[in-house]
Formats: sequence, structure tokens, C-alpha cells
Amino acid sequence: TALSLAAAQGAAEPGPLAGKTLLLTAGPTREALDPVRYLSNHSSGKMGYALAEQAARLGADVTLVSGPVTLATPAGVTRIDVQSAQQMLEAVMARVEAHEIFIGCAAVADYRPVAAATDKIKKSQETLTIEMVRNPDILATVAGHSKRPFTVGFAAETRDVEHYALDKLARKKLDMIAANDVSKPGQGFNADSNALTLYWPGGSKDLGHSDKATQAEALLLTIAEKLTK
Amino acid sequence: TALSLAAAQGAAEPGPLAGKTLLLTAGPTREALDPVRYLSNHSSGKMGYALAEQAARLGADVTLVSGPVTLATPAGVTRIDVQSAQQMLEAVMARVEAHEIFIGCAAVADYRPVAAATDKIKKSQETLTIEMVRNPDILATVAGHSKRPFTVGFAAETRDVEHYALDKLARKKLDMIAANDVSKPGQGFNADSNALTLYWPGGSKDLGHSDKATQAEALLLTIAEKLTK
Repeated sequence: TALSLAAAQGAAEPGPLAGKTLLLTAGPTREALDPVRYLSNHSSGKMGYALAEQAARLGADVTLVSGPVTLATPAGVTRIDVQSAQQMLEAVMARVEAHEIFIGCAAVADYRPVAAATDKIKKSQETLTIEMVRNPDILATVAGHSKRPFTVGFAAETRDVEHYALDKLARKKLDMIAANDVSKPGQGFNADSNALTLYWPGGSKDLGHSDKATQAEALLLTIAEKLTK
Repeated sequence: TALSLAAAQGAAEPGPLAGKTLLLTAGPTREALDPVRYLSNHSSGKMGYALAEQAARLGADVTLVSGPVTLATPAGVTRIDVQSAQQMLEAVMARVEAHEIFIGCAAVADYRPVAAATDKIKKSQETLTIEMVRNPDILATVAGHSKRPFTVGFAAETRDVEHYALDKLARKKLDMIAANDVSKPGQGFNADSNALTLYWPGGSKDLGHSDKATQAEALLLTIAEKLTK
């Protein structure tokens, strides 16, 4: 029978995210100053890719909108590559209604140069002033959508982590936020491990310190719990 | 005999750069804005790494000062990793007297933020102004050294390539410059091929369009010719 065949293939138990659709962002964005120069950040994409991989393993239908990283696409994950925050916003908003969960794990550049030069800037001056404007807030845009998914953000901070995380949770009207202190060694942008604390309206959960796959699974299982309540 | 043993190992013919010492830089630099953000450029490091690999194959003793790239160190090459232009300058100047040839292939950031913030910048404003100052000019510093090596620079331009290349050759008092037009498809920063034109005081040589290993070998053989004259 189909059931025994599924069991023989090790797919007997439907995963805790079986049938759920997850849209997530990962990696940095790059904001062009001119054809050769850009502003970016140290996000490796490892946490977002760990989330995509674990979510697929737990049964979710996963779409990953990714900034420039050097990581392989996890098995079973649909990946869309983007460079800038504006491209990431467009890729996300085109798909947000079709997904039940959104996790904004990308380290989106907060600002972009006012106008990217078409030709390479010549270095004729001793000083250079770059005028920057705020990028669109992808997380807040998703959370403000009339058909919003369960919306989860990340807060990577160098100090006052809980304060900034709770402020971001409330201000952007998120369902959950995963906070970490990137100033501590062994967690954050280029590390293979992490130490997330989850906050949601009225509660929190410390995930301890472990590899990013374990942190990702714990975060996804917490989301699955909230969705079934 | 030692000679026949060398011949049996395929090392009978000394390479055209045998016994020569080459110091070169490759890749981009990253200039920190704060602990998470940086300014960089699209240099992949492929051209510099191709030069390091071919130079070692042609018999040179090669030291590669490299910005952050995702490339493997070529066999037989000594690699020193750096991030910022200032770190790259220090790594180069500490070694410049011990080398007969210098090739500046890195895409060194021309400017860096006046002061890198210790904590992550909070995005509380609609606009942000970044004040930048000129970075040290590594190539000109090497060329201006009292015991300067044979000094070769690169010019990656988006227009008026020959004009800017000849200007840079004269202004920085280089022995040779390798110019390419990065606005053309299939050459430049992330491509596997290139189309360099070499200029030196009183002459030039068009290397045509080919893979970066072939371009690297042709450039190195031209340098070897100049050194033996």
C-alpha cells in the first residue's frame, strides 16, 4: 500500500511542519555604491540556511530568498538569489500571501547609498561623503501585510540584547523574535554555533548554546507549537 | 645523478622565474563601519590567485597577501590573510625589501570610514552620512620605496581605460600596469577570463582575451623578459 511504502521509505511519521509553507530570508544584502563598490555586512547566511534545511527535514515546503553567500542550497529547498534589500523585498512580497510562516533571518542593510553611480567613482579627493537613505523594512512590511504569515524576526545586537529584542518585537508587531549577542565569541555571524533567546508577546525561551542546526530545529519546533495552539 | 633525478621529476628546465621572489596582493579589502557592517568591492581574487599559481609554477618564490576571498591557496604559495587596506599595507611593507617583484592585484578600497564604531550603529534616522577618508596607496608606497621591487599595478576601469591606465603608470611611477575594462562582459571581477593590456614606459602589449591562468602566465613572462634585459 501507499502507507507501507511511505513507512519503508522512512516517511511514516509526518514532520511537525508537514504541509506548512515557510518563506525565509538569509545572508547579507549588498548595496551598490557604483559598479564595483558596495556596502555589506558579515552575515554568513549559516543560520538561515540551517533553518531552511531543518524546516525541510521537519516537513515544511520551504522557499529561501538569499543574499550573496557561499553556501549550498539545502535539499528540497527552493532558492531565490537576490543582491540588494529592495530586490529582497520584491522577492518576499511577491510570495508572502502563499506562505503561512515568514522568518526574516537575513542581515538586511539598513541603509543604501542615495544614488548608485553608473561609472566607477574616481578617487580625486582626500575625503568622500556617502549619503545614505533608509532601506525598506522587509520584516515590518511583512508583519503589516493584511494577510500576514506567522512572522518571526532576528535581532543581532552587540549590547542590551533583551531590551532591543523586546523593542523590535513590539515596534514591528512580530509574532516572535530570536535574539543573539553577536559580540560574544562563538555565536553570531560567521560562527557554526549560536545562543538564541526567543521572545514572543508574553513569553520567552532560552535555547542555550549549541550548533546552528540544533538552534534552528528548536526555533522551528517552538513556531510549530505556537501554530497548533 | 641529481641532474637526471630532477629531469625524471620533470624539473630539468628551470622556470623563467626560477630564483625570483614575488610579493603580490589579491582580492578585495573590507573597511569596517562598525562590528557588523563594512564597505567592500566585487573583486573575487581570481586574477591574483591565478598569478600566484602561475608564478609558483614558473619557479618563483611567491608570497600572497590576500583580502577575504573564497579561493584555495595555490600549491607552494605562502599566503597572509588581511581584511583592511591598512592591514594589507603593513603586511606588504614588512616584506617588500625581501622581494624583487611586486604585483598589486588587490582591489584595495580607496576610502575607509573616518572612525569605525565600536557598537553596531542604531538605525534611528531616515538618512545616514558616512564620512570617509582616503586609504593609504599601497602601490604608490611600494613604488616610492628606496629599495623598490619591479612594481606592477592593475587598473580596473569602466571607461577611458587606456587614458586612466597611462595616467596611473606615470603618476605612481610604476614599472608596468595591466589594464582591463570591467564594464565588458566576460572579463574583470568575477569572471574566469580576462582581457588585459599591459603598458610600461614606452611600450604596450595586448594579451587578447583568454582564461585568467593564460593571462597570468603572459603577464609573468613579460615581467621576466623586462627583468633579464
